[in-house]
Amino acid sequence: MSDLVISSPQNPAVRLIRSLAEKKHRQETGLFMAEGEKVLERARREGWEPETLVSLEAQSHWGKARQLLADERVMASLSAQKNASPIVAVFRQRWSRDVTPNGTWLALEDLRDPGNLGTIIRTADAVGARGIILAGQSCDPFGPDCVRATMGSIFGVPLIRMTAAELISTCKSWPGEVAGTHLNGSTDYRRAYGSPTLIVLGSEGKGLSPEVAAACATLVRIPMKGGPDSLNVAIAAGLMLYEAVKP
Amino acid sequence: MSDLVISSPQNPAVRLIRSLAEKKHRQETGLFMAEGEKVLERARREGWEPETLVSLEAQSHWGKARQLLADERVMASLSAQKNASPIVAVFRQRWSRDVTPNGTWLALEDLRDPGNLGTIIRTADAVGARGIILAGQSCDPFGPDCVRATMGSIFGVPLIRMTAAELISTCKSWPGEVAGTHLNGSTDYRRAYGSPTLIVLGSEGKGLSPEVAAACATLVRIPMKGGPDSLNVAIAAGLMLYEAVKP
Repeated sequence: MSDLVISSPQNPAVRLIRSLAEKKHRQETGLFMAEGEKVLERARREGWEPETLVSLEAQSHWGKARQLLADERVMASLSAQKNASPIVAVFRQRWSRDVTPNGTWLALEDLRDPGNLGTIIRTADAVGARGIILAGQSCDPFGPDCVRATMGSIFGVPLIRMTAAELISTCKSWPGEVAGTHLNGSTDYRRAYGSPTLIVLGSEGKGLSPEVAAACATLVRIPMKGGPDSLNVAIAAGLMLYEAVKP
Repeated sequence: MSDLVISSPQNPAVRLIRSLAEKKHRQETGLFMAEGEKVLERARREGWEPETLVSLEAQSHWGKARQLLADERVMASLSAQKNASPIVAVFRQRWSRDVTPNGTWLALEDLRDPGNLGTIIRTADAVGARGIILAGQSCDPFGPDCVRATMGSIFGVPLIRMTAAELISTCKSWPGEVAGTHLNGSTDYRRAYGSPTLIVLGSEGKGLSPEVAAACATLVRIPMKGGPDSLNVAIAAGLMLYEAVKP
């Protein structure tokens, strides 16, 4: 590694990393950025190798990654946090194709808010879900707001992209129970679910599309007492995931 | 009401409303802003009268509020949403002092993130919680990010401010069960709770302070399978609230 310490936020390598905050550049390069020692420790534990590492101090345990040293001003230009992380890393995005029905799975249709998606990934990780299907027009899980909200779980939960039509055929061929949440669901969500369980949730504004809802064997309802029209989708996902894995 | 349509984003009334995005100006004036027809409909249903209303079209059913008409450019300068709301309103902040122990209550210590707080207020509203205690260094529930995340529930759930010391004495004199969530909690959170129930959650980074944790009669744990160190606090609040009200 070079002993040169980057001191300009306009350094080309630094600018490239910063550009990954934009979806266009993430799509062009297939890369994304994550930051913070704890988060990157999780990445390593899960077998992710960064392509590039930028840090205030030399890092010894990161294998083949290109390592760059930078001063505090440069780190602040890279970090999205108020207190800049002392280390940021660039990784290649990973999409899984393996939807083996076992344990608990989650499918999200047209999810729009990156913070919600990140929180859902973190919760799915907490219950040991086997993977998350992002169907239709989902926001990008590798965007900075989502990655930050996962608190490292972006490295722990397989993500699968598919169209709404592919989700529908996945639901129809699923061997266990497919449970969608729906405001008109006839069953209370607090019940036992058949295994393997596929939980299906719709978008923030509209919920599940009629087509995907029709492909769910069970439509469940999370009860509410007046008040709001609906729950935040990450809250609904949390309640469903914990219900599905309850002993 | 005046028939004059405000066409300048620099109009003093418009600038005053925009200034409410900053905490300093909310504290000076005791006001806050909410937007959108559905959200303001909820405000009216709950008996909140706006001080000022700014809209694209004249509104007939808003009683004594000062009403202003504005063009689309001005509405866009006021709205925090991508698609500007056709109506925004300014309300006087309300803090309750009534902590009568009944039903389900929630106390939050040092909560930092306005989006989390808004989501928690929305969930508390959904389960019919009687109020939320904001203890210690809480973020401002009347800030724009929190108000937006509540989706109108800011008008439906009484909010009480207190110091950590006051929360501790509230916990100690609580007649039912006081249940705090804690990573070292000895009991699984999935259980029956004594009534009235006071659920206590700590901040995003640190959880409950040792002093407040010690004042909770029960410390419960939400189980996790490896993965992340903790859940998002709004997810933890959602799980606890739904567990506390479960039939």
